[in-house]
Amino acid sequence: MTVNPVQLSYENQDFNEQLDHLLAWDSVSDEEVQHRVKHIIAQVRARGDEALIEFTHRFDRLSVSSMKELTLGEDQLQKALETIPQEQRQALEVAASRIRSYHERQVQSSWTYEEEDGTLLGQQVLPMDRVGLYVPGGKASYPSSVLMNAIPAHVAGVKEIIMVVPTPDGVVNDMVLAAAAVAGVKKVFTVGGAQAVAALAYGTETVPGVDKIVGPGNIYVATAKREVFGQVGIDMIAGPSEIMVVCDGRTDPDWIAMDLFSQAEHDEDAQAILVSPDKAFLDQVQESMRRLLPEMERKKIIAESVNNRGIMIHVPDMKAACEVTNRIAPEHLELSVEDPKALLADIRHAGAIFMGRYTAEALGDYCAGPNHVLPTSGTARFSSPLGVYDFQKRSSLIHFSPEGASEMGKVASVLARGESLTAHARSAEYRIKK
Amino acid sequence: MTVNPVQLSYENQDFNEQLDHLLAWDSVSDEEVQHRVKHIIAQVRARGDEALIEFTHRFDRLSVSSMKELTLGEDQLQKALETIPQEQRQALEVAASRIRSYHERQVQSSWTYEEEDGTLLGQQVLPMDRVGLYVPGGKASYPSSVLMNAIPAHVAGVKEIIMVVPTPDGVVNDMVLAAAAVAGVKKVFTVGGAQAVAALAYGTETVPGVDKIVGPGNIYVATAKREVFGQVGIDMIAGPSEIMVVCDGRTDPDWIAMDLFSQAEHDEDAQAILVSPDKAFLDQVQESMRRLLPEMERKKIIAESVNNRGIMIHVPDMKAACEVTNRIAPEHLELSVEDPKALLADIRHAGAIFMGRYTAEALGDYCAGPNHVLPTSGTARFSSPLGVYDFQKRSSLIHFSPEGASEMGKVASVLARGESLTAHARSAEYRIKK
Repeated sequence: MTVNPVQLSYENQDFNEQLDHLLAWDSVSDEEVQHRVKHIIAQVRARGDEALIEFTHRFDRLSVSSMKELTLGEDQLQKALETIPQEQRQALEVAASRIRSYHERQVQSSWTYEEEDGTLLGQQVLPMDRVGLYVPGGKASYPSSVLMNAIPAHVAGVKEIIMVVPTPDGVVNDMVLAAAAVAGVKKVFTVGGAQAVAALAYGTETVPGVDKIVGPGNIYVATAKREVFGQVGIDMIAGPSEIMVVCDGRTDPDWIAMDLFSQAEHDEDAQAILVSPDKAFLDQVQESMRRLLPEMERKKIIAESVNNRGIMIHVPDMKAACEVTNRIAPEHLELSVEDPKALLADIRHAGAIFMGRYTAEALGDYCAGPNHVLPTSGTARFSSPLGVYDFQKRSSLIHFSPEGASEMGKVASVLARGESLTAHARSAEYRIKK
Repeated sequence: MTVNPVQLSYENQDFNEQLDHLLAWDSVSDEEVQHRVKHIIAQVRARGDEALIEFTHRFDRLSVSSMKELTLGEDQLQKALETIPQEQRQALEVAASRIRSYHERQVQSSWTYEEEDGTLLGQQVLPMDRVGLYVPGGKASYPSSVLMNAIPAHVAGVKEIIMVVPTPDGVVNDMVLAAAAVAGVKKVFTVGGAQAVAALAYGTETVPGVDKIVGPGNIYVATAKREVFGQVGIDMIAGPSEIMVVCDGRTDPDWIAMDLFSQAEHDEDAQAILVSPDKAFLDQVQESMRRLLPEMERKKIIAESVNNRGIMIHVPDMKAACEVTNRIAPEHLELSVEDPKALLADIRHAGAIFMGRYTAEALGDYCAGPNHVLPTSGTARFSSPLGVYDFQKRSSLIHFSPEGASEMGKVASVLARGESLTAHARSAEYRIKK
C-alpha cells in the first residue's frame, strides 16, 4: 500500500489554480434522494407516529406496535452509563466537564441602555425552547458528538433536548446513550433517517416538534434538514472533514504523520494537508506515513484519503504559509511551530486553531473543551464553531419616551415619505407632539 | 372598499387550529424559476463579466460595452448625497448615527483563559473580509434597508462592502446611493437579479467574490441566494412581513389602525394582527380602519392584506395574549399597554418588541437604532435580528502545555479507542509523557 499525497510548491506559477482544483468539493445533490426524502417528510407530517413506525420498520428492520417501544427515558440512559467500563465513563465525564466549562464562557446576556430623554433600547437574549439532536447509528455513531452537540444547548438554557438515534436491527450503542446521560439529555427516540428529522420538525403525537435540529447524518438526513429549514432552524450541513498542519520542520515527523492520519481515517473524502518551508521535512513525514500506515486499523481508508485528497505544500516562508491558510480557511489548523502566537496575528480564517507541537487535533476532538463541530470546505471564512450562541436567540427592545417618539417621529416621517410608505409616515406622525 | 379582518376568540374550542390555518405561509418554490436561476449562475461562473453584461442588457435593458459603465465609485455616491433634499439627507444621517450607536453594543471580542498547567483556551472573533449587499431596484428600493444592512457590517469591521443595485432602464435612485454613502459603502455595481448574486458569490474579472451576501430581493434573488449558500454565507430568506399588536384597549384606536396599516401597505401578503382583551376596542379599531382607509395612498394593497391575512383576536386576559404571542413568534410585536415591562417577562419569541403606546413600529423601521431586518413567519423561535454578529466569525483557540497535553492525551485515547478511531488515539498518545 503506497502513500502518495500530491506535492505542490507555492512558487509554481499556477499554484493557486492547482490548489483550487485539489480543494474543490461538490456535495452530491441527488434528485432521487430529494424525491424520496420529500415523500417521507410528507408522510410523517400527515400521519405522525403511524408513518414513523412504518419507516422504522422498513429502514431499520424494527417491528414495534407503538412509539413506546421506540422511546428511552432517563432511567435507561442512566443504566447505559452504569454499564460501560469505568475508564470510559470517567473519560466521558472529564470531557463533558471541560466542554461545559469552555462553553459557559460563550453565554450571552440581555442588555439595555437608556437615552437622555428616557428612551430605552436593548436586546433580550433567550434560549430556544426545545432542540432536536440527531445522532447517527451504526459505524459513524460517536459519543463525543453527543457531548459536543448537547452540552452547548444545555449551557444555553434550552429546557428540552430531544435526541434521536436509529438502532438498526435493534443494536444500541451504550456509549452513545451514556454520553447522552452525561450531557443532560432526558429523552431519546430510537428513530433515524429523514423520518426522524420530519418528526422533530413537525412533531407527531409522541415526538414533540422542536425549534432547531442539530447533529450530523448521512445524505438522507442532510437532505431532510435542508428541506425542513425554515420550519425549524438547522446547523451547517458539513462537508468532508479537513486538517491543515503548518510545521516549521522541527516536530517529530511521526507525530505529524499521525496527526494527518487522524483526519484521513474519518473517511475516503477527508482531506489532510501539510505545509512547511522545509522541503526535507515534507519527505520525512511522507517516509513516516509509509512506515506507520501498515500499523493502522483503518489503513485502507487512510491510504485512499491521502492518495486522492492529501496535499503537501512547500512554501518559501511562514508568511506564505499563513497566506495559504487564509486561502484554504481550513476546518482544523495545527500550528506545529516554536512560537504559534507569533503566527496567530496573520491567521484570519480557520474553524479551530491547534497551537504548538503538543496540541494534536485529536485532543480538541474529544476533551480540550472547544467544540468539534466546525465549519468545513472553506466556510470558516464566514461561519463559526457550533456554540452556545447557536442555541440562543435575540429580540430587539425599543421603548420610546413620549419625547423620544416625538423627535424620532419627525425623522421617520421624512424617510417613510421618501420611500412612499405613507401609512408608516402617518403612524409615526401621530406620536409627534403638537 | 371594505376592511374585514378575520375575528377570532381565544376561547373558541378550535382556536389553535384556526390560528395555525391563518398563519400558514408556504413560500413558492417554482421549478421553472430554479431552472433559470441555475442557468444564470452557471453562465456568470463560467464567463464572468461578459455574462453579467449580457444578462443586464436582457433583464434591465441597459446596453453597455464594459463593466466600467456598471460601476459607481465613492465620488458618485457622495454626489448623490449632495443631490437629495437637505431634509432627507439630515434624516438619513440621524438614522445612520442611531443605528451605528446601537449596533456598536453588539460587537463581540476575542477571549482566552489559561488553566493551571499553562494550557490556553479561547475564541478569536474577527470580521469577515468582504461582504456583498443586495439592494432591490424599482418600487421596493428602500434607502433605510441600505443603512440597516451595511452599517452592522461596517461596525463589525468588514473592510470591503460591495453593493449591487439594479437600475432598470438606467433609472437610478439617488436616495439609495445617498444612503450607501452615509453607511460607508465605497463601491457599487448597478447590476441585479440572480446574475448579481452569482457575481458576488463567485467573483468576475471586475466584481470581487465576497464571503457573505445579505439584503432582500425578489424570487430570483432569493432562489439564487439559496443556490450559492455554502460557497458564501447568506442571511435569512425572508417571508412576508408581519406585525402583532397587543393592546389593553386604552390606546387611541386611530393610532393602532395606522400601525396595522403600516404593515399592510408593504404588500398584499403582509400580515397585521391585533390582540386585545377588550372586545369593544377591537370594533373601534375596525371602525378607525374603515374611516382611515380611503385616505391611504396604498389603499388597494392595504385592503387586500387586511382582508386576506388580517386577524383580530379577542383574549380573556393579558396572560392569554402573551401565550398567543409566543405561539405566533411575530416579526414585530407592539405592546401598546400601560406597563409593557410587566409583560416582557412572559414574552419569549419575537423579532423586535416595541414597548408602550408611543413606540410605533414605524419608528423602529427607520431610526430607533435596532435593525429592521427581522425573522419572519415564526422563525423568531430560533433566529435573531440582523446584527454585527452576522458579520463576525469565530475560531477556537487551543494551546496545550506539555503537561496538559499529557493529561488530556490519556482521556482522548480512551474515547478515541471507544470510537475505534485508532489514529486519533495514537496521535494523542504521542503527547503522553513517558
